[in-house]
Amino acid sequence: MSRPDKFPSKVTIHMVSSLDGYAASRDNNVEWMNTKDRYEQGIILTAEEINAYLASIDCYIMGAKTYEHALELGWPYGDTPVQVVTRQPRSSGKDSVSFHSGDLTEWVNQVLKTRYRNIWLVGGPDLVRQFIRLNLADEIIYTIVPVLIGGGYPFFDAIAKVQPLHLKDQRAYANGMVELTYEILKTDGLP
Amino acid sequence: MSRPDKFPSKVTIHMVSSLDGYAASRDNNVEWMNTKDRYEQGIILTAEEINAYLASIDCYIMGAKTYEHALELGWPYGDTPVQVVTRQPRSSGKDSVSFHSGDLTEWVNQVLKTRYRNIWLVGGPDLVRQFIRLNLADEIIYTIVPVLIGGGYPFFDAIAKVQPLHLKDQRAYANGMVELTYEILKTDGLP
Repeated sequence: MSRPDKFPSKVTIHMVSSLDGYAASRDNNVEWMNTKDRYEQGIILTAEEINAYLASIDCYIMGAKTYEHALELGWPYGDTPVQVVTRQPRSSGKDSVSFHSGDLTEWVNQVLKTRYRNIWLVGGPDLVRQFIRLNLADEIIYTIVPVLIGGGYPFFDAIAKVQPLHLKDQRAYANGMVELTYEILKTDGLP
Repeated sequence: MSRPDKFPSKVTIHMVSSLDGYAASRDNNVEWMNTKDRYEQGIILTAEEINAYLASIDCYIMGAKTYEHALELGWPYGDTPVQVVTRQPRSSGKDSVSFHSGDLTEWVNQVLKTRYRNIWLVGGPDLVRQFIRLNLADEIIYTIVPVLIGGGYPFFDAIAKVQPLHLKDQRAYANGMVELTYEILKTDGLP
């Protein structure tokens, strides 16, 4: 797949989070994501809209734990290319899955961004921190489930950097989930 | 001040937070709250609206560190009653300030809620955790500044409890801040 010239490639960090900032519980229980809430003014997406949205994703990046968790959950990524960042590459049995070790900057900018347009980083916290610290991500989509889970793996784990953002979009869904889209500004420290 | 019968008293947890969930930086620097962002579709409040909103608050609750920080910042609470929860009561020199030590549940339900209608808990993390664990809070207003600060005092510090919420309201402001209002559901665990 070659990159269309009119749209630059983009790396989006996207995870679902509890209001207290956890992207996963310690035991990888995902029951808390199935909110029973009802927000009257919220949006309901059609199956067609959801499918079109997912079809627009050209590549997923994830860490080894997120990869293993996805295998346990029944592999929600279909045949879309998946890049697993790990110190211990292995064979996957899936043609769509590749493993990467070592330097991230050259790999993202010289390899992934020349192949894929819409790249999603879906966890976990170590990889999110590295992408933000190395200025490798362009956008954050932060989706908040109406629940406090009280502990677990944080979406942002003490990234030790001040990073200004620009709010691009915000919307609430009928199930009480709120989706916030931010551009990661290319500046060090406060503007 | 006696409680109007037609409106029950309510305890609202309200703090401003970075997107990575910190309500304060370690050095109490508040520069990150002064966002330079611009969100075209966002709301702008008039000075009258802000004053009416603040005037609706009947009492503030805070911990000792938040109190000391407020003194350093020039006391933003005017003459509104302030209750400081601390193990070391002291004299304040302000008639509007009282100190409380010991049990929280009876004090909130039997003392504060019979005196004040609109009670705001404004930090810090220890007190927020206790209020959620003891079921003493009714509402959370979570206001997100478009910035990652990378470390500091978290809004929610590992409360070790699953607490379902109901999204009541959400709005974005022209300065890129997003305000989410949640009802704290009176149920243990997931609904």
